[in-house]
Amino acid sequence: MERILATYYIETPYAPEKAAAVLAGEQSSGTFVAVPGETAELKQRFAARVESVEVLETVNEPAIPGATSKDGKYHRAIVKVSWSIENFGYNLPVMVSTLQGNLYEITQFTGLKLMDIELPASFGEQFKGPAFGIEGCRQLTGVQGRPMIGTIIKPSIGLSPEQTAAMVKTLAEAGIDFVKDDELLSSSGNSSFNDRVDAVMNVINAHADKTGKKVMYAFNLSGEVDEMLQRYEKIVNSGGTCAMISINSVGLAAAKKIMDQRQLAIHAHRNGWGMLTRHPLLGIDYKAYQKIWRLAGADQMHVNGIQNKFWESDDSVVASIEACLTKMFDHKTVVPVVSSGQWGGQAFETYRRTKTVDLLYMAGGGIMAHPMGAAAGVVALQQAWKAAVDGLTLEDAAKQYKEFAAAVEKFGKR
Amino acid sequence: MERILATYYIETPYAPEKAAAVLAGEQSSGTFVAVPGETAELKQRFAARVESVEVLETVNEPAIPGATSKDGKYHRAIVKVSWSIENFGYNLPVMVSTLQGNLYEITQFTGLKLMDIELPASFGEQFKGPAFGIEGCRQLTGVQGRPMIGTIIKPSIGLSPEQTAAMVKTLAEAGIDFVKDDELLSSSGNSSFNDRVDAVMNVINAHADKTGKKVMYAFNLSGEVDEMLQRYEKIVNSGGTCAMISINSVGLAAAKKIMDQRQLAIHAHRNGWGMLTRHPLLGIDYKAYQKIWRLAGADQMHVNGIQNKFWESDDSVVASIEACLTKMFDHKTVVPVVSSGQWGGQAFETYRRTKTVDLLYMAGGGIMAHPMGAAAGVVALQQAWKAAVDGLTLEDAAKQYKEFAAAVEKFGKR
Repeated sequence: MERILATYYIETPYAPEKAAAVLAGEQSSGTFVAVPGETAELKQRFAARVESVEVLETVNEPAIPGATSKDGKYHRAIVKVSWSIENFGYNLPVMVSTLQGNLYEITQFTGLKLMDIELPASFGEQFKGPAFGIEGCRQLTGVQGRPMIGTIIKPSIGLSPEQTAAMVKTLAEAGIDFVKDDELLSSSGNSSFNDRVDAVMNVINAHADKTGKKVMYAFNLSGEVDEMLQRYEKIVNSGGTCAMISINSVGLAAAKKIMDQRQLAIHAHRNGWGMLTRHPLLGIDYKAYQKIWRLAGADQMHVNGIQNKFWESDDSVVASIEACLTKMFDHKTVVPVVSSGQWGGQAFETYRRTKTVDLLYMAGGGIMAHPMGAAAGVVALQQAWKAAVDGLTLEDAAKQYKEFAAAVEKFGKR
Repeated sequence: MERILATYYIETPYAPEKAAAVLAGEQSSGTFVAVPGETAELKQRFAARVESVEVLETVNEPAIPGATSKDGKYHRAIVKVSWSIENFGYNLPVMVSTLQGNLYEITQFTGLKLMDIELPASFGEQFKGPAFGIEGCRQLTGVQGRPMIGTIIKPSIGLSPEQTAAMVKTLAEAGIDFVKDDELLSSSGNSSFNDRVDAVMNVINAHADKTGKKVMYAFNLSGEVDEMLQRYEKIVNSGGTCAMISINSVGLAAAKKIMDQRQLAIHAHRNGWGMLTRHPLLGIDYKAYQKIWRLAGADQMHVNGIQNKFWESDDSVVASIEACLTKMFDHKTVVPVVSSGQWGGQAFETYRRTKTVDLLYMAGGGIMAHPMGAAAGVVALQQAWKAAVDGLTLEDAAKQYKEFAAAVEKFGKR
């Protein structure tokens, strides 16, 4: 029978092997009392199994509250544990409860983070993965050979549908590929979801009729299940190509229900993610996280950006991009969404480290606040990426391209 | 216009007032560029507002990775921020994205935990709260004047439906009020959900026909949306009274969809909760968490237990019980589910500190491993609670009640 393998980064005042055994016991057939009919064969079939324990460094302070060490030492280790898929079948929420359930409560750990999941082959058949992925999103936006360039409507909240549509018109005429709602806006006092779809899609459809290019707009349909399904239909019927879901806030089962419709590309916004990963020894690493959401059917997933305005390191961002671009089964590959403080200057380092243009590259001020206007802002981003791929330095690119030079002048000095 | 007020416990290398302003800006109308038509009135209407900053201690080490302090000092504070409900209306996922979204990414914080939420009066009308709550669960189980006594089927996974039903029969005859699936089991290789409902409800219905007492069984229906709805119907049609949802794994929107059916009491299992709360300066406190889930319609919520086997302190458990029992609007009150390492000995301290019997009190080994049998185990728990309410000490209770004395003999020496 196939097994699913989870890798944890742990810290414990006990011997790591002993703590790993507690984890495996808590998360499967741990018994406190013998039960009639509980055979060795049944235990063998459903028990979690510690596959390996790699002991790392020892520290003198616990990372998070838990059992106190008698000798003042806390041991870190990489632990691999496996479960038969017979335990939960192809049920993602119960898989999550098994891999990330009460084990975070275990006092024997003073740190525990789920680092990776290895999924058995049958998961590739049972789950369809992204309906569009990189290929599909490129087809929908008509962009080949470079990153899709996107932006977020700002201010996050407060604009009327007409004001939003006016910005989309400016951006569409500027040559943008992708625009999205902010995660704070779904339906507000002055911008109902349906009115915004009407106003924005009027602009996008008219622009597509004229130019043949349809801008992808990610409408934030996050809400209750029936409401999300209705909003999804509204987008489809209005000629839209994308819906955005705040995946952590909406949650796995409802988000998958929307993703299962497979008529729109799904922009998976990870707001709330910092809560799940920011501590190095608590929560879940992006490598594991993105696998769960790819199984569910996310087409585009946020990865933050190089030199971002948030807390995350460049190394972590690069690892996230690589995780997204790693093939999973024969599924389509999810689009990494690069955002946060991006203006084009980071294209060089992003390309140097990832060697890919299979990205949705989001810039806010880099477009709207470009000194020569929004159209020049979009062009400058395209130039930056062409130069990065061509092996130019930022300085060379600024000499060669005047729109990018203006961007460097304004944003490069921050 | 009504506002929603959130209380955060923060740590920052900057002046707390400045960090609070960054939070409010990020989570509402923070602009990086002036937009035509963005009036002062609009900003006033949608901007988050810092309501208060209470500065606490200063420390020399950051709690989690973030901006480095120039003077080596990190300041802690309680910060209150409010938003107009016009920003998101009555949309719980978008409310969560607003209160718990990208703010965990902000580098200006080296710690951030959502401690409490104050909800405006209209939320009490828009959301119905628990369909059953304490009153309804007491009616369904026929238990008055003492805690409902419950247990979990163990081993967590591996028993066949027939084995599970045989255990339920023993427990029902022992006088149990409530039994639940483990969160690891929903539908496994040897216990499909429907077969288990059939086998267990046969036993429960037969026992109810004979005695008039219907044991409440929480079937773990966690899964995909349509699957959960089908399973819900199966429970209803089989005469069941309760469904269990792993709320963190299933997620808010899908769990609410199930809770909205309002025909079964919903046992909200919080597995994964440690990940969200275990660090003192990251995530969300139970006081805020249980409010979100009561709005969604949870009837029973886990609170851990006094002297539990997990990491959580008794003070934290007591605060959680008090949070659950605090009236919210004119809604029914959620049942605190006390569990983890309970056997009756903790009834005294639990009652001393909470002065309530409005609990679902879960014991595992305390029942099944009682030296005089399961029936004596259930009786011993009832005795412990009666003694606690009557003001007896554990020692006095052991003198008065022989079943409880046997429990003390076996479990009190651990």
